[in-house]
Amino acid sequence: VTVGERIRVVAGAGSADYDVVIGEGLLARVGEFAAAAAPKARAAAVISDSNVAPLYGPQVVAAMEGALGRASLHDFPAGEANKNRERWIALTDALLEEGLGRDTIVVALGGGVTGDLAGFVAATFLRGVPVVQVPTSLVAMIDASVGGKTGVDAPAGKNLVGAFHPPVVVLADPACLATLPRSERSQGLAEAVKHGAILDAEYMAELRERAEDLLSGEPYASRWAVRRSVELKAGVVSRDERESGLREILNFGHTLGHAIEAESRFEIPHGSAVAVGMVLEARIGEAMGVTASGTADRLAEALRAMELPTELPSGMDPDRVLGWTGADKKARGGEVRYVQIAAVGSVHRDRNWARPVAPDLVREVLATGSALS
Amino acid sequence: VTVGERIRVVAGAGSADYDVVIGEGLLARVGEFAAAAAPKARAAAVISDSNVAPLYGPQVVAAMEGALGRASLHDFPAGEANKNRERWIALTDALLEEGLGRDTIVVALGGGVTGDLAGFVAATFLRGVPVVQVPTSLVAMIDASVGGKTGVDAPAGKNLVGAFHPPVVVLADPACLATLPRSERSQGLAEAVKHGAILDAEYMAELRERAEDLLSGEPYASRWAVRRSVELKAGVVSRDERESGLREILNFGHTLGHAIEAESRFEIPHGSAVAVGMVLEARIGEAMGVTASGTADRLAEALRAMELPTELPSGMDPDRVLGWTGADKKARGGEVRYVQIAAVGSVHRDRNWARPVAPDLVREVLATGSALS
Repeated sequence: VTVGERIRVVAGAGSADYDVVIGEGLLARVGEFAAAAAPKARAAAVISDSNVAPLYGPQVVAAMEGALGRASLHDFPAGEANKNRERWIALTDALLEEGLGRDTIVVALGGGVTGDLAGFVAATFLRGVPVVQVPTSLVAMIDASVGGKTGVDAPAGKNLVGAFHPPVVVLADPACLATLPRSERSQGLAEAVKHGAILDAEYMAELRERAEDLLSGEPYASRWAVRRSVELKAGVVSRDERESGLREILNFGHTLGHAIEAESRFEIPHGSAVAVGMVLEARIGEAMGVTASGTADRLAEALRAMELPTELPSGMDPDRVLGWTGADKKARGGEVRYVQIAAVGSVHRDRNWARPVAPDLVREVLATGSALS
Repeated sequence: VTVGERIRVVAGAGSADYDVVIGEGLLARVGEFAAAAAPKARAAAVISDSNVAPLYGPQVVAAMEGALGRASLHDFPAGEANKNRERWIALTDALLEEGLGRDTIVVALGGGVTGDLAGFVAATFLRGVPVVQVPTSLVAMIDASVGGKTGVDAPAGKNLVGAFHPPVVVLADPACLATLPRSERSQGLAEAVKHGAILDAEYMAELRERAEDLLSGEPYASRWAVRRSVELKAGVVSRDERESGLREILNFGHTLGHAIEAESRFEIPHGSAVAVGMVLEARIGEAMGVTASGTADRLAEALRAMELPTELPSGMDPDRVLGWTGADKKARGGEVRYVQIAAVGSVHRDRNWARPVAPDLVREVLATGSALS
């Protein structure tokens, strides 16, 4: 068993800093890492969905039981549709009925939905118990498990209810990625490309070169991308405490991405929607003269290499997509804001990390797929 | 309009410190205090129950609208039975449907139930928005609105789900107390006696002397008790950051109090149950030789002056009460712990602020009402 990397994340807001540990074979060692990160824990509740629980549940429960003496598995039906308050209630009540108390540690074993839902259970159980994030999908390893955001969806929109509740440790075992379907890895790579687009041009170029290895789940390439993406995201999250609002740059591609996702009634998966969103938001930036010309095309090329879409699906109504940006929660309490890149690898900043854009320009770019500048 | 007092509370855990402001006429000035404490807020959601909303809702909404330009009133049926996750969902969705966003401030206008429920709405709305606590009952002014605990009940017990979410400011207007029934003021005074019992013997003696004024809601006496209790509780909460676990002393009387409350199916109100709990827990302490003899009787005298009970109701089964202490959430993750006072005004401390007690001794004190020492 080799533990390859440890990346420190500054949690801020009174929470303890934590490590993201990346390495093959970590699933078997979840117990020792959890016990070290939460020394007061005496019982574990492993929360996992119906896809992941049969694959890794018994191994992780055994590891936690070995370390703490007591562990149980709580599963729920897979899918974003289950990331809701009703499922949160059912999981919380299952833990309470088991008699679990303040000395419990929650282990979130799975993809982004599991991390958000189990994290919110931990955030609110007896006013908060520690959580270990054990991401098993590429997008969860690369993005979702770092930063401390937890929560569930409401009828009015995604992620509208939740809490900041940083994990005590994140354990990413790239060996899990080999069993994923190719299309799931492709989805996760959208966020990796985003990290390159906002922070590291070289990373984006190398992602493109190694696209085939990444899409096929080749272990060295996977581990490399997880490590670099976590480094980049951890850097942003850690600096956010000092540079208030820096974290907002992680929303690049997401203003339109969320709208496209919603307009498709979530038939277009998150990664694909964000891929299209990044290209269109870059085109908006080019039209406004804040983004170097040719940037959107470079981005589109990298995303196509990851087998991701780069244009609005034909037949999707630009006005309806624009309407959804108003419903996007970032719009709550004011104007719709866009993160814009100056070029691949750097975000444009004036007073803020994001700014409003004239709705007419957004509509035009949505309608034509390219800006008239 | 006179603002009498400002007491600073150290929130800890990365949250900003806040003031408890006590003064007549504050309800009309909620807007200016809220705007000063949360300068980014642009809209207010006033949450109140069906008893309090008709009395003070319009005035507080008008004050918030005057300060922020936008305010709405959200009420829910009064009573502890409504402090649950379903009501939390309904209130959250009502705020979302109104289009409220991150620039919202929640105003919790009412007693302890409203403070807990509205506080938890604020803690989880879009991962957390500020809350102003505006307590209108004596127990909420004296106790519940200070400290940042928010949450709701679950079928397995009270306050099992929640979050720490300190308010940005607490505004206590003793003029509200005059309209309360005498029995409600009596309930609130149980926590005031507790503050004296654990921290300030002189305060307890003076409470007893001024009992009639306090029970009738006389303004000067009421304001004096609110101020002194808030000072004492704020001192504990503020020091808890340094003296880890100090806050536990506020649980004096509550281990048995919660059990009595539960065994009565919540027909015995919280203050009455805690009053009995304090006397019985002092008797346990006397039997163990950690509490000065005569302390329980002194406590009982003060509580009787507040028209509160001091003995287990006849017919209540000691074994069943003992059973509920195991179900009490303080027992989760280990033994049942009791805070014990050395004498009126000071808590007994060994290694910890609370310690386990032999169940046989608890049973004996419950059965006889007085210890065989």
